[in-house]
Amino acid sequence: MDEFALIRRYFQSLQQDGLPSSVSVGIGDDCAVLNVPPDQQLVVSIDTLVEGVHFLPDTPADQLAWRILGAAVSDLAAMGATPAWLTLALTLPQAEESWISAFSAALSAATRQYNIQLVGGDTTRGPLTLTAQVHGFVKTGTALLRKGAKPGDLICVTGTLGDSRAGLDTLLNDASLDEDVAYLRRRFYRPEPRIETGQLISPFASSCIDISDGLLGDINHILEQSGVGAQINPAALPLSAELLRFAGQKKARSWALTGGEDFELCFTVPPSQWISLQSQLQHHDVQVTPVGAICEATGIQLFIECEWQMVEASGYKHF
Amino acid sequence: MDEFALIRRYFQSLQQDGLPSSVSVGIGDDCAVLNVPPDQQLVVSIDTLVEGVHFLPDTPADQLAWRILGAAVSDLAAMGATPAWLTLALTLPQAEESWISAFSAALSAATRQYNIQLVGGDTTRGPLTLTAQVHGFVKTGTALLRKGAKPGDLICVTGTLGDSRAGLDTLLNDASLDEDVAYLRRRFYRPEPRIETGQLISPFASSCIDISDGLLGDINHILEQSGVGAQINPAALPLSAELLRFAGQKKARSWALTGGEDFELCFTVPPSQWISLQSQLQHHDVQVTPVGAICEATGIQLFIECEWQMVEASGYKHF
Repeated sequence: MDEFALIRRYFQSLQQDGLPSSVSVGIGDDCAVLNVPPDQQLVVSIDTLVEGVHFLPDTPADQLAWRILGAAVSDLAAMGATPAWLTLALTLPQAEESWISAFSAALSAATRQYNIQLVGGDTTRGPLTLTAQVHGFVKTGTALLRKGAKPGDLICVTGTLGDSRAGLDTLLNDASLDEDVAYLRRRFYRPEPRIETGQLISPFASSCIDISDGLLGDINHILEQSGVGAQINPAALPLSAELLRFAGQKKARSWALTGGEDFELCFTVPPSQWISLQSQLQHHDVQVTPVGAICEATGIQLFIECEWQMVEASGYKHF
Repeated sequence: MDEFALIRRYFQSLQQDGLPSSVSVGIGDDCAVLNVPPDQQLVVSIDTLVEGVHFLPDTPADQLAWRILGAAVSDLAAMGATPAWLTLALTLPQAEESWISAFSAALSAATRQYNIQLVGGDTTRGPLTLTAQVHGFVKTGTALLRKGAKPGDLICVTGTLGDSRAGLDTLLNDASLDEDVAYLRRRFYRPEPRIETGQLISPFASSCIDISDGLLGDINHILEQSGVGAQINPAALPLSAELLRFAGQKKARSWALTGGEDFELCFTVPPSQWISLQSQLQHHDVQVTPVGAICEATGIQLFIECEWQMVEASGYKHF
């Protein structure tokens, strides 16, 4: 089969179930033609994964589909947005049917899970690289930004931190598979973007970011854009039992502070909103943990050995 | 300088002149926050260029900026759309300041020329690859699609064809530089997306596509989606004097039929609209040339040696 036809068949099958009303024209023309609902703003984010840089060579195609989409949708979650559309630029060394078939099946499952519609893409030959742009909606004026944290605000994170970094470690060091290792790898391969949590906290939070480069590096973006500093208590960081058993407390805390790609949310809440937020969270199944507070003095301080110590926001660097 | 800061400095400088009203939040948050004007639909397209596949190694950074943006905006032109926003995913082997500086200066000039605003991006390390997503607006219900060509419609193209393929040839064969060679290379490096022409023809045309893979390959998309065939007269193809001098008539026609990346428009017009369209085109500075007609019998026929001959739509294949 002609390679164009092959790729077209697999990806066009992702819109076989019919298109949502927001999509007038999907895959197959020069552009997709799309409708943003009245009173909504469009939010967009573009993310690239490169083989050998962001994922290990020979990572299974289905894992890549979940990973790229989870990471990209996480940016929508950080804005408190509702996912809408996906475009995908796929650069492949060759058009191998088994790879494309596995990738598109997983992408289909992932797009259904996050309720996001594939509306366009480009497939090219070259070193394995995936670029996804996600598009979502927020009610006009309600997008949750990095800017807005104020001294006194609580700093919170969702879920548990450091698991993804540990998952990568199990792969790099070829750890023998047990239940903990399986859990940590799943956290690495299948980030769970906090879409509902982002929407739930949006009316209460003063700023938000998703944790892709590590807590310290990412909160630093909030601090820079808000013109404030932070005090964080490492003992308060939420750590999974699996991570603690696998890595021990010291390494677990270090990975929770600087390990990338947890795709949890880090957000700030004014003390006046804290009670209201807690009551909203009562029946929500994602854990939210206060880990520190915003302060006036710029920079990040960690509470280590009974005193506040300044640290560098040494997140993951791309070069 | 920290590489993050380097890239941020160059790309954020592209929004220094202030943001258009359609952009509430540009570069620098998890997502851009954008406003689609009332009564408009959003059209989007994503395109990737890979070093060694879509452009030669060591292509100057400024040429790449013009090329990726021209090629991407051309998809907006084919819909009759008005350019609005750009996102850019850039994968670079290293963060070299001279490269980034030259690229961003050219990108700045190109985005001003096409009146498109950079609103987000991702910069990663890896083999040189550029992915651009362009976003534009069309009045609701007026997007110009590939579908819609009917038997009897005239097939028209803008500008001249084959120049870009000849420009590539001058590079591959290291042709000695004269005025013709310089012209053909400019056509290769700096496609001129037909934005105004697309908007002008939109009320009259029944279908449209931009010529990225070659006239035969691209018109075939119109034919497939419209369920019709085409008769094309190669003698009617618009060829530049530079191309004719460089390649001779035979090769020039062949490149005009199958050479990719001219980024001219190919569109169809019902005969009833032809007079009105011509009067609109009278004071328009882009040439529009009828090159054939849509017919009921599927497939493409060329008028060669005084008879109609069926041909394969052998456009450029990505694999």
